[in-house]
Amino acid sequence: MRIICLDLEGVLIPEMWLEVAKATGSKDLEVTTRDISDYDELMRHRIAVLEKLGVTLPDIQRMTEHVRPLDGAVEFLTAVRREHPVAILSDTFVQFLSPVIEPLGLPFVLCNRLDVDKSGMITDYSLRQKDGKQVAVKNFAAMNLSVTAVGDSFNDITMIRAAERGILFRPSETVTNAHPDLLVTRTHEELAAAVLNPLP
Amino acid sequence: MRIICLDLEGVLIPEMWLEVAKATGSKDLEVTTRDISDYDELMRHRIAVLEKLGVTLPDIQRMTEHVRPLDGAVEFLTAVRREHPVAILSDTFVQFLSPVIEPLGLPFVLCNRLDVDKSGMITDYSLRQKDGKQVAVKNFAAMNLSVTAVGDSFNDITMIRAAERGILFRPSETVTNAHPDLLVTRTHEELAAAVLNPLP
Repeated sequence: MRIICLDLEGVLIPEMWLEVAKATGSKDLEVTTRDISDYDELMRHRIAVLEKLGVTLPDIQRMTEHVRPLDGAVEFLTAVRREHPVAILSDTFVQFLSPVIEPLGLPFVLCNRLDVDKSGMITDYSLRQKDGKQVAVKNFAAMNLSVTAVGDSFNDITMIRAAERGILFRPSETVTNAHPDLLVTRTHEELAAAVLNPLP
Repeated sequence: MRIICLDLEGVLIPEMWLEVAKATGSKDLEVTTRDISDYDELMRHRIAVLEKLGVTLPDIQRMTEHVRPLDGAVEFLTAVRREHPVAILSDTFVQFLSPVIEPLGLPFVLCNRLDVDKSGMITDYSLRQKDGKQVAVKNFAAMNLSVTAVGDSFNDITMIRAAERGILFRPSETVTNAHPDLLVTRTHEELAAAVLNPLP
């Protein structure tokens, strides 16, 4: 039996932090895991910028409530879920999911959690576990599942390398150059064909 | 982060083999995991009965194409999926899922596979792995997920015992008597309340 592990942001939905950057007009919030490979460094930076701007979690939730899945993502996800179990392994936060989880059809998602104080300011974040995407892939393999993993960013690479099959979707040039051996897909149709193609 | 592991037959959908028993009129197919605790013994018995009756997999698929989720199951499952990742851990076969998987909203399901010869006769079955429900719970725990497990039968007990919290749903008297310490629920409303109730 196969399992398909998918990154969320950049693969099925837009990058939530870029929506926050757009809404706040802050250039400092435009960097993502596609640019900075150290996730903790990136999150400390984001939390510091939000504090400087006085932007709370409820503010962010208002700024992102219009976000919907990427064009073609729902059709892709539905087609894959008809054939295989799908686990979305994301470094996003459970507090960011509400505008997209119903349009995606309530898929199986593992992600992280933001820590928030009484005033709504984000004070910290709680990882589900260190290198959670890779650990999840290894544990799915221990369930005798053959894992195909799909991602777009540096934070997906250990997951992709741990999987039996790994596929990049619309990676940045930095990611592609660092990992020239990985299959690159650019549209959800291409991705569906690669994912649903039986293993050799 | 929590995860909810659910048995499928008896919890979300009817027992598929009882539908086959009804359609064939065979009393020999009326026994389930609620009656016989040794799954391999039960499956060998079923395969031998089907061979004697000359019933093929396509016959079974025609006999069960009318099967739909239990009353209240879709509402229960949707309510739980809005709050937590849900993994359905089933001893059923991937070839039995087609009439119920779309009405359930394409949930995450791990199950087994029937081996079929050219004439459509079921010759054997392939377990995903030995004691797969329990191994899945242990691997979800290794993903730093707090597991709640729900089942109705003997084949769910090791999964329930491995979970942080275990709940029985409409168990037979035999199962209840053998495990008097486990919480028993009888309706999907009761089950939703127990599952969604935060851990103490």
